[in-house]
Amino acid sequence: MTQLPLAIIGAGPAGLSAAIYAARAGIRTQVFGSTPKVAGDYEIDNYFGFSQTISGKTLIEEGRRQAERFGARLTDEKVIGLHHADAGGFHIKTDMDEYEACGIILATGVARVRPGIDNLADYEGKGVSYCVSCDGFFYRGRTVTVLGEGIYAANQALELLAYTPNVSVCTQGRENTMTEEFRQRLDAANIPVTTRRITTLSGNNGLASVAFEDGTTMDTEGLFIAMGEASSLDFAYTLGVERKGVFLVADTEQKTNIDGVFAAGDCTGGFLQISVAVGEGAKAAKAAIAHVKKLCA
Amino acid sequence: MTQLPLAIIGAGPAGLSAAIYAARAGIRTQVFGSTPKVAGDYEIDNYFGFSQTISGKTLIEEGRRQAERFGARLTDEKVIGLHHADAGGFHIKTDMDEYEACGIILATGVARVRPGIDNLADYEGKGVSYCVSCDGFFYRGRTVTVLGEGIYAANQALELLAYTPNVSVCTQGRENTMTEEFRQRLDAANIPVTTRRITTLSGNNGLASVAFEDGTTMDTEGLFIAMGEASSLDFAYTLGVERKGVFLVADTEQKTNIDGVFAAGDCTGGFLQISVAVGEGAKAAKAAIAHVKKLCA
Repeated sequence: MTQLPLAIIGAGPAGLSAAIYAARAGIRTQVFGSTPKVAGDYEIDNYFGFSQTISGKTLIEEGRRQAERFGARLTDEKVIGLHHADAGGFHIKTDMDEYEACGIILATGVARVRPGIDNLADYEGKGVSYCVSCDGFFYRGRTVTVLGEGIYAANQALELLAYTPNVSVCTQGRENTMTEEFRQRLDAANIPVTTRRITTLSGNNGLASVAFEDGTTMDTEGLFIAMGEASSLDFAYTLGVERKGVFLVADTEQKTNIDGVFAAGDCTGGFLQISVAVGEGAKAAKAAIAHVKKLCA
Repeated sequence: MTQLPLAIIGAGPAGLSAAIYAARAGIRTQVFGSTPKVAGDYEIDNYFGFSQTISGKTLIEEGRRQAERFGARLTDEKVIGLHHADAGGFHIKTDMDEYEACGIILATGVARVRPGIDNLADYEGKGVSYCVSCDGFFYRGRTVTVLGEGIYAANQALELLAYTPNVSVCTQGRENTMTEEFRQRLDAANIPVTTRRITTLSGNNGLASVAFEDGTTMDTEGLFIAMGEASSLDFAYTLGVERKGVFLVADTEQKTNIDGVFAAGDCTGGFLQISVAVGEGAKAAKAAIAHVKKLCA
């Protein structure tokens, strides 16, 4: 398994800024993440240093080349699992490979995908969960459903097999975007996938069943939310990083409560701006460099 | 006197980033400050968004045009006095004019000029002061000296006349850079200027005299440090902004303890990087915009 001194999850302004600093400091750095949302149709006027409007696409492209120029490795492998490694450090599972890292910077931005289930919050902690490795144990032998359309959801479903054989996946009305490999693995494990949309949860003493848009219902006692790609928030759950709402709590040096885990950019809340993310990325790198030099040099 | 909703003191990355945000938000914004040190011979590799090395000069030039494009006014007038205004808000005195501002962002960077007097710290609070408006009262009728070579020092010397007629200026071995106007005003007020260099302070019960490099001494009971240009630190003294060492204390929104005064960039300490300064400038602008809209809209 590839050993990485520093892994950065997220390739937006925060992650790339961190990569530039870490790589320049001589730390072997790998950035995981596909094109961030800012590289879409955004036009950027307020990021200091550009007298004319710059497109998000150009800014990210420039930043990627800048990080690579100093030796950072960028990969668009999707991280679908991030856990504490038995030997210390962190274990990273992607759609293609596995890694171990000494330090982690979380910088995926903030997840925008919402399940769209009216009474979801009523069942949080009573059947609705965001973390298989945290809560799977409580659903031993029960019927559970993973909500999500991609390989992150598929991987969560496969992880649930450690606790129960009664697992299904619901894409919540979205197109199934899983790779052929993951579709086959779900098939082989007898995990059905429905593309219908859940509208309501019910159950008097915790979750008991879900109702679909078409009026039909399905019995399930656990609903694990895993829509879109895995985000910093999802990894915060598995690593035990302190959260406040959907944001990760980081101190002024971008350290989280977990030694070796740093967070930067939108995933930490505050003023969600490229300017702020870039500054936080630099600070996270400074802290991560010190961590890596101390523990893994 | 010109009324300004928002005055930004300092035209480096933090000040210009703040100006971009404030001006885009429709706040009439004036930036005071001459070329920052980063526009010197610096080559910048680690500020996200530039795949190739960019010179500090180019980066600042781009940022200035960016701020101006959204309507910020930039002036290289030097701020030599910043105080609370009687009617609320802040009074700004420059080498050329006076202003009143509703909100202030301090972003001058950190002052690098050191007097080079070995036992200076021994006399801080016992004859050595950094703030005429804070401490002038304690030197009523006494013999005092301002240490500094420019118009900031000249202005501090003139302010001291409110407390004592026995004022002199020492440029500490540096070339006298005062304008002709300030030279004439010092002459008219019988304030002599020496270009010699003080090496040691002495006095058993507080400062009593200073020794020059050439071995001569001069009796003085107050030494007011005002070398180089006035910095955020100097203004922090006059406004009562909380400090920690040479840095200003600001919270995560860049607010200081003084309502309406915000601080960003190197003057607040931490990781002294363009990336961080730009993010802090954006956050300071956000807080200042809210302040101005609430109090001075």
